[in-house]
Amino acid sequence: MTTTTMAMLDAYPADTVLDKQLLTRIISTCGECAQASTACADADMGEKMAADLVKCAQLNLDCADMCETTARVLTRQTGYDYDMIRAVVQACAQACHISAAECDRHAHMHEHCKVCAEVCHRCENVCNDVLAKLRHADGT
Amino acid sequence: MTTTTMAMLDAYPADTVLDKQLLTRIISTCGECAQASTACADADMGEKMAADLVKCAQLNLDCADMCETTARVLTRQTGYDYDMIRAVVQACAQACHISAAECDRHAHMHEHCKVCAEVCHRCENVCNDVLAKLRHADGT
Amino acid sequence: MTTTTMAMLDAYPADTVLDKQLLTRIISTCGECAQASTACADADMGEKMAADLVKCAQLNLDCADMCETTARVLTRQTGYDYDMIRAVVQACAQACHISAAECDRHAHMHEHCKVCAEVCHRCENVCNDVLAKLRHADGT
Amino acid sequence: MTTTTMAMLDAYPADTVLDKQLLTRIISTCGECAQASTACADADMGEKMAADLVKCAQLNLDCADMCETTARVLTRQTGYDYDMIRAVVQACAQACHISAAECDRHAHMHEHCKVCAEVCHRCENVCNDVLAKLRHADGT
Repeated sequence: MTTTTMAMLDAYPADTVLDKQLLTRIISTCGECAQASTACADADMGEKMAADLVKCAQLNLDCADMCETTARVLTRQTGYDYDMIRAVVQACAQACHISAAECDRHAHMHEHCKVCAEVCHRCENVCNDVLAKLRHADGT
Repeated sequence: MTTTTMAMLDAYPADTVLDKQLLTRIISTCGECAQASTACADADMGEKMAADLVKCAQLNLDCADMCETTARVLTRQTGYDYDMIRAVVQACAQACHISAAECDRHAHMHEHCKVCAEVCHRCENVCNDVLAKLRHADGT
Repeated sequence: MTTTTMAMLDAYPADTVLDKQLLTRIISTCGECAQASTACADADMGEKMAADLVKCAQLNLDCADMCETTARVLTRQTGYDYDMIRAVVQACAQACHISAAECDRHAHMHEHCKVCAEVCHRCENVCNDVLAKLRHADGT
Repeated sequence: MTTTTMAMLDAYPADTVLDKQLLTRIISTCGECAQASTACADADMGEKMAADLVKCAQLNLDCADMCETTARVLTRQTGYDYDMIRAVVQACAQACHISAAECDRHAHMHEHCKVCAEVCHRCENVCNDVLAKLRHADGT
């Protein structure tokens, strides 16, 4: 996916607002995190102790939705609006943070929570890298 | 849709964290705004002067994605997390604000932008009502 | 939502391929069904007997995703493609049918499954009305 | 993304219905195709000749929505339903086919259409591989 994302950015008919490496990283990590979170919610429901993992599953679903929205918003170069990107990426960082914290609590018992938590932490970090860049870009 | 949303909240097996009237209002308005924004982006592309409306269409698409995510997150009562809701609703209010401002610029020429702007403004307001309630609810 | 959907179709800068009443009906019913299905999956997880409702919740989530995609595809008038609409609406009718059948099994015990099943059946019917119209429209 | 998708399938608490290699392939290709299609629709709008690419952009958006839904439905192992998967994957194959055909028409002029068409063709092929496997699996 990373290769295709980069190829599409290279084929974009104008300059991109953010650095292409960073854009590729946030778009592909959000896609990865959305998929892992959907899978973790599903694995939670497949466990014998599903009832104990209901909160984890629900926060994973929230995180998956927020990551997909973020990947789409960052993919759209035409009509880029700093305030739009900042608002969406902030919410995504927060969603990944909350979902990771819940998965961390079950990581010692469930490998799927461990893998999902790792991806969520990584996605939160990329979001924060983008937010730092945006602060730099518009001088705020 | 409002009637079904309320019926589903009434059938929820526990108390809801937010008032059901307010929840119904934000969920159904986000759904309405997502649909109107998708339609406005499409109508922009169907205009002879599509090239002038590209930015409007793109911000509408961002807004549609953010509203759908918000409707889903607010629909999920199980495992409610104040920080998750707050982050998502803040981003949604901002997305609606930005999309409405762009549609307002074309509202005198395009009825679809006028209708869409009205829904976006209304959705921003409901998001702000929910944010006010959340501040009250957790004493911050 | 229905009023806004119709207003947006009226503001569309060209003729719509399908009748506006029917378009409004499928778009708003898909939106309603997506929301009810998301809510039912959540209510399933909120029940004490959540473990028995896991399959229901998962099929509801599939149905919600399929209905949202269908609402978006039908909303886009520009570049309408009969084969695209037909494929998506057929899958949506099937997803609603399967999700309704599962909810029906729990409708006597859970009001949320009863409400959700009713909406899914209604959505399947609208999809079938659209498919019938499409067969008529292109003479197949 | 492929590595994480496979790790999540390995961590799933039961057997998967389809072969894990094939599942990983369809889930990650649908994610890749959804992203490339969102990017192509955006690049179309960023071109000076945007007005000529409106149909392409709209079919790309349909394809992106259908691919995201398919990735989510295939990710959910709990409560797997053959008819649900078959319906969704068939619609996805068709959406990719239509979107690829439109992008192919512009591939000689626009690199983003060329890259996107290649991914859409690949995604259609994986969908067809899964459909063939499903026919074998349930003996129809």
